[in-house]
Amino acid sequence: MLVGFGIVGQSFAKLLLASCPELYGRYGIKPRLVACVDNQGGAFCESGLNLQRLLEVKRSKGTVGAYFKVDSNAKTNILQMIENVDSEILVDVTTTNLEHGEPATSHIIAGMRSGKHIITVNKGPLALAFPSLIELANYNNVMLRFSGTVGGGTPILDFAKRCLKGDRIISFMGILNGTTNYILSKMEDGLTFENALCDAKQKGYAEAVPSLDIEGYDAAAKLVIMANWITGMKVTMKDVKRSGIGGIRCSDILKAQKKGHAIKLIATCDHNHLNVEPTEISKRDPIYVNGTLNAVTFFSEHSGQQTIIGHGAGGMETASAIIRDLIEIKETAFR
Amino acid sequence: MLVGFGIVGQSFAKLLLASCPELYGRYGIKPRLVACVDNQGGAFCESGLNLQRLLEVKRSKGTVGAYFKVDSNAKTNILQMIENVDSEILVDVTTTNLEHGEPATSHIIAGMRSGKHIITVNKGPLALAFPSLIELANYNNVMLRFSGTVGGGTPILDFAKRCLKGDRIISFMGILNGTTNYILSKMEDGLTFENALCDAKQKGYAEAVPSLDIEGYDAAAKLVIMANWITGMKVTMKDVKRSGIGGIRCSDILKAQKKGHAIKLIATCDHNHLNVEPTEISKRDPIYVNGTLNAVTFFSEHSGQQTIIGHGAGGMETASAIIRDLIEIKETAFR
Repeated sequence: MLVGFGIVGQSFAKLLLASCPELYGRYGIKPRLVACVDNQGGAFCESGLNLQRLLEVKRSKGTVGAYFKVDSNAKTNILQMIENVDSEILVDVTTTNLEHGEPATSHIIAGMRSGKHIITVNKGPLALAFPSLIELANYNNVMLRFSGTVGGGTPILDFAKRCLKGDRIISFMGILNGTTNYILSKMEDGLTFENALCDAKQKGYAEAVPSLDIEGYDAAAKLVIMANWITGMKVTMKDVKRSGIGGIRCSDILKAQKKGHAIKLIATCDHNHLNVEPTEISKRDPIYVNGTLNAVTFFSEHSGQQTIIGHGAGGMETASAIIRDLIEIKETAFR
Repeated sequence: MLVGFGIVGQSFAKLLLASCPELYGRYGIKPRLVACVDNQGGAFCESGLNLQRLLEVKRSKGTVGAYFKVDSNAKTNILQMIENVDSEILVDVTTTNLEHGEPATSHIIAGMRSGKHIITVNKGPLALAFPSLIELANYNNVMLRFSGTVGGGTPILDFAKRCLKGDRIISFMGILNGTTNYILSKMEDGLTFENALCDAKQKGYAEAVPSLDIEGYDAAAKLVIMANWITGMKVTMKDVKRSGIGGIRCSDILKAQKKGHAIKLIATCDHNHLNVEPTEISKRDPIYVNGTLNAVTFFSEHSGQQTIIGHGAGGMETASAIIRDLIEIKETAFR
């Protein structure tokens, strides 16, 4: 079951369509989307919705509620639908809210209570209530996966959790927000903060109200998710010391440049302290990346320091993270 | 059973000692080293060798053959020992030979024939005969793992294989040799090739006869291993078009610098073509790293492009890769 059908949801449907043969051939998986709901309506079909038709209906009518023509203007009760639909996995791709985490938190809880494994790309619920959601998942004996919340298509969480077995990650730091990194890169090229922000908006990298990015909330949310998942800390947004990039001036950037440095919005997890703040780093540091790139360096006990770099967003990239979670749930929970 | 007891072998013993409680606590694994052999002798004890004593004997007597005092000057027949010792896993940490792959290839074959899973950090056998070794492993129903051959402690192979499930890596490129990268970085700082090489030798980054690194053989061997493992190609050293960095002059570096570029020894796998050659890359490219760092960028079908960066060598780092392989074999083969 899929809740939300915006850019990520539609990309996910397209990717499912495209990778069906491969998912079956390589992993023995034949995913069937039995229900899909957006903020105007829902569609349900036990034998599986036709994804092509679903995308077409969304495009032409604006809502998946028109899939069956009937009831297209009756508003769907999403929570009721989540509880009643018989599906193994709930995929939530609704919009992030970092103040109250809704509506995703309610979706996730309803899904868990009705025995569904959860895949979400929504940072809100995890940033605000990671420890209790993991507990609830364990209590209901379901899996909760969220690869798409950090790094988009770049498997930052997977890398830390799977690729460093037998070792221990002591600390990590990185650039977790593409929008602010784009702005700071443009300021390095000589633009003022205001012009760089304007440019980011024009290119679609920044929201109309970009405070979530600029003030560091988005990076803080990702940091919280990483800290919980990777180091086992039990923390939420309120445990992050946070400051944004709004106060950075061209003169600060120039001063750093003279030392071969740059100013980046760096998120750090070190000795149980979580920080998001503009920080001077050397241009020779592997996490010195530009444009909308994200980069994280992990410091581990025995295997040294490792950096992973990739684009942190994009519909198709995030959809590919959902597919990864899907495969993992199938391989773990249903074997 | 451990074959070879140089820097990596001893680091592995130290790391086993240090991580015993953790391996048991987190993974339920209690590794026991029943046999260890170096080029002067061997030691065997069914209930497990004392690692502390093994390291001490090696340090004071120069060979693990002196562990039991008896027979210390009788040369061990390694192949016979491999076949006769009853152990689940053979760990080969002998020195790489890229011309004939021995003695490691014989060790590995003898180990597989006697039903042992294999962990090797030796590039020789894999660079020269990857496809047939994998076939032999399948035939004997054992696992062959080699995380330490590429990237040292940096899990480049694991990342590509595990973290991008459901996606397809289309091509990849990277800096796979730390020695040449160190030399090229020093040349960027103004040193001549000869002086940079001298400096690398002094710091222990380059061998006395550094041709394996300088001429690109080491990078080519890693490229072959990656191509086989990640993309499923069936290739060996002879399939790589290779040229080294011996011909690079300061004037080439300067010319590149004027464009904001640098010259790096880049290994590429693209459309089934394998190449190792000095290449101009932008200093803004995430794989532009300096010193002894390695860096690889993977281009995948849906999740975009991702770069992983880390130090490619070091005894403890490579030992941590062996531990990862050990955990994977235990989790896969003995579950």
